[in-house]
Amino acid sequence: MLLTNVGELVTNDPGADREGGPLGIVRDAAVLVEDGRVAWVGPAADAPVDADVEVVDLGGRAVVPGFVDSHTHLVFGGDRAEEFAARMSGRAYEAGGIRSTVAATRAATDDELRTRLAALVAELRRQGTTTFEVKTGYGLSVDDEARLARLAAEVTDEVTFLGAHVVPFEYREPDGPGADAYVDLVVGEMLEACAPFARWIDAFCERGAFTAEQSRRVLDAGRAAGLGVRVHGNQLGDGPGVALAVELGAASVDHCTYLSDEDVAALAGSETVATLLPGVEFSTRQPYPDARRLIDAGVTVALASDCNPGSSFTSSMPFCIAVAVRDMGMTPAEAVWASTAGGALALRRSDVGALRPGMRADLAVLDAPSSIHLAYRPGVPIVTQTWKDGRRVA
Amino acid sequence: MLLTNVGELVTNDPGADREGGPLGIVRDAAVLVEDGRVAWVGPAADAPVDADVEVVDLGGRAVVPGFVDSHTHLVFGGDRAEEFAARMSGRAYEAGGIRSTVAATRAATDDELRTRLAALVAELRRQGTTTFEVKTGYGLSVDDEARLARLAAEVTDEVTFLGAHVVPFEYREPDGPGADAYVDLVVGEMLEACAPFARWIDAFCERGAFTAEQSRRVLDAGRAAGLGVRVHGNQLGDGPGVALAVELGAASVDHCTYLSDEDVAALAGSETVATLLPGVEFSTRQPYPDARRLIDAGVTVALASDCNPGSSFTSSMPFCIAVAVRDMGMTPAEAVWASTAGGALALRRSDVGALRPGMRADLAVLDAPSSIHLAYRPGVPIVTQTWKDGRRVA
Ligand SMILES: [Zn+2]
Ligand SMILES: [Zn+2]
Repeated sequence: MLLTNVGELVTNDPGADREGGPLGIVRDAAVLVEDGRVAWVGPAADAPVDADVEVVDLGGRAVVPGFVDSHTHLVFGGDRAEEFAARMSGRAYEAGGIRSTVAATRAATDDELRTRLAALVAELRRQGTTTFEVKTGYGLSVDDEARLARLAAEVTDEVTFLGAHVVPFEYREPDGPGADAYVDLVVGEMLEACAPFARWIDAFCERGAFTAEQSRRVLDAGRAAGLGVRVHGNQLGDGPGVALAVELGAASVDHCTYLSDEDVAALAGSETVATLLPGVEFSTRQPYPDARRLIDAGVTVALASDCNPGSSFTSSMPFCIAVAVRDMGMTPAEAVWASTAGGALALRRSDVGALRPGMRADLAVLDAPSSIHLAYRPGVPIVTQTWKDGRRVA
Repeated sequence: MLLTNVGELVTNDPGADREGGPLGIVRDAAVLVEDGRVAWVGPAADAPVDADVEVVDLGGRAVVPGFVDSHTHLVFGGDRAEEFAARMSGRAYEAGGIRSTVAATRAATDDELRTRLAALVAELRRQGTTTFEVKTGYGLSVDDEARLARLAAEVTDEVTFLGAHVVPFEYREPDGPGADAYVDLVVGEMLEACAPFARWIDAFCERGAFTAEQSRRVLDAGRAAGLGVRVHGNQLGDGPGVALAVELGAASVDHCTYLSDEDVAALAGSETVATLLPGVEFSTRQPYPDARRLIDAGVTVALASDCNPGSSFTSSMPFCIAVAVRDMGMTPAEAVWASTAGGALALRRSDVGALRPGMRADLAVLDAPSSIHLAYRPGVPIVTQTWKDGRRVA
């Protein structure tokens, strides 16, 4: 199949761009797809001609690599709309927080969780996302975490075991067993039950969640079980998350709002991606992380949605791009790169996030002449087609 | 036709709400539509039963009145994506600004403008907007302004003549005739050519655009020609726009970012709506207007998109709601009200903006159980159906 009359093709292959930018832009381009992979990209005028090839004329629209959303919490029960409304209205709200999502998730049947998950996956696809990670973390018991990992594995290869999301209520009660006992469970029986479904281990290393020591135990155990490392850190204040992530060779450390100069330097000298989650700060009225500082220091930055019912219930990578440009100091090109190639690096994937020969033919067609419109037209659903492995999925 | 199994119905009829809020929420509701109008609303269990009535089951989804976007500049040629990217990247950009849009608009054929306009109208509808205003203002010559007014009138009854958008370049050149000569043209031949297509007169009363004196000449002339008054004012700094709007009994004064206490008091004591345009501040990195201050003072606030290629190329009322909640101090309920009932007041329309018997059956169906999700799920295209005059249009 030949996708042709592409007004602007973002390849993320710097070598492809006669203008020399990181997006590897080819204008008036075509993409040849064979067996679900990119076989050739270049100017449409130079496209290989073959009478057998089905030609799809994109009418001058822009094409970008499918978005890679490297951080979501898509498997959960209930929603927290009333809590959100109360927070935004300055009203007190009891019985909210992650605890309410854990309760709703535990109470939901597999099919209820599956139906909700399928709806969110369809929503992601409609918005151009072709690869996405899904974390556990609303089960917080052996059986419930394993259930979430299994359900997540039904929709993605990128499952992250996040038993160390928060210490569950029953361990935190005054006479409960405490956080360290919960970590014992996480690194023992819970990891054993979840690892078969997971590619990644993650821990929320933050005041109020898990200490550096506890996080290290969890991440080391995950590594020993063959999982790759990711970390939630430095979201709400300074903390050891970034240093720990770099020390352990994590693929990504996520949030990165409060960073010391040492944190930035450590990231710049590492293979660890700093994944920024603009939906969180948007939905919680927190200060935004400073993407400019990170990029200028040489850190690799990814954007992801953190889609979850508490702090960021967006599933829209275009929205994340627009906010990152508005409020985090990214240029439109940097934000597009971070949500495609950046996300792929954060998942250590070499088959997605760019449109070069050999990569998966995962792409989003925009109802716009250039990828700038992702930031220029905030909130407007300009993704008009999504293709995955060479097939149209939305 | 009976729309039933509406999980949450926003009527904007305070009398309908047993919980007493301004949104007039009815849960588990139904709406009976006859001849394109609302014939009845109430709990689904009480819905009038008639074997002839077609029943549409909305599966528990929320329904809101169709959005009323009271401020757009939808008729134009070209776009300004490169200028946007340069601004957001801190790069200089020559040859941009409104002047480039005026040049592109003048150079476009009627059919080119019509095609672009139709695409934007379709985009608005897909996002739940059922009533929208369109301004002229990128022609700035008698023939071009009349052409824009005529094209706008093909898609909406709410056409605003904005010849006083900016003094065109050819009048501002060192040896050009000057701003007052341009105002002579606006209040004379241009108004005469445009008034037959228009319902409203508008002027951009701001430093760098038109003075209070010039604006008053324009607005008075429009009024004398039978047009209602709207004003662009107080966007970039303190100014006389709000006071002038209140004095002239304008339906709306739009932007309202920089307001003195006197401005707020004048608005609170008037019938003039303060229309806030979150997309502008989002896309230009300007400070947001303070909706909280206005609402607390008793001012009626509307939200609108200001959709235009220079300062706010969003057409998404849900996006405007999300930003207004995040950054302008509005509660989710206030923002939903401002984008429906508020917009209707800004256009002095009593047939739209609410779902009471007698109103037009204009509504948006959300793929969500409550209208809070418009702010709770930023950037996600949750409008799944749009109905206008009782017919599905998207
Ligand atoms: Zn997270
Ligand atoms: Zn305007």
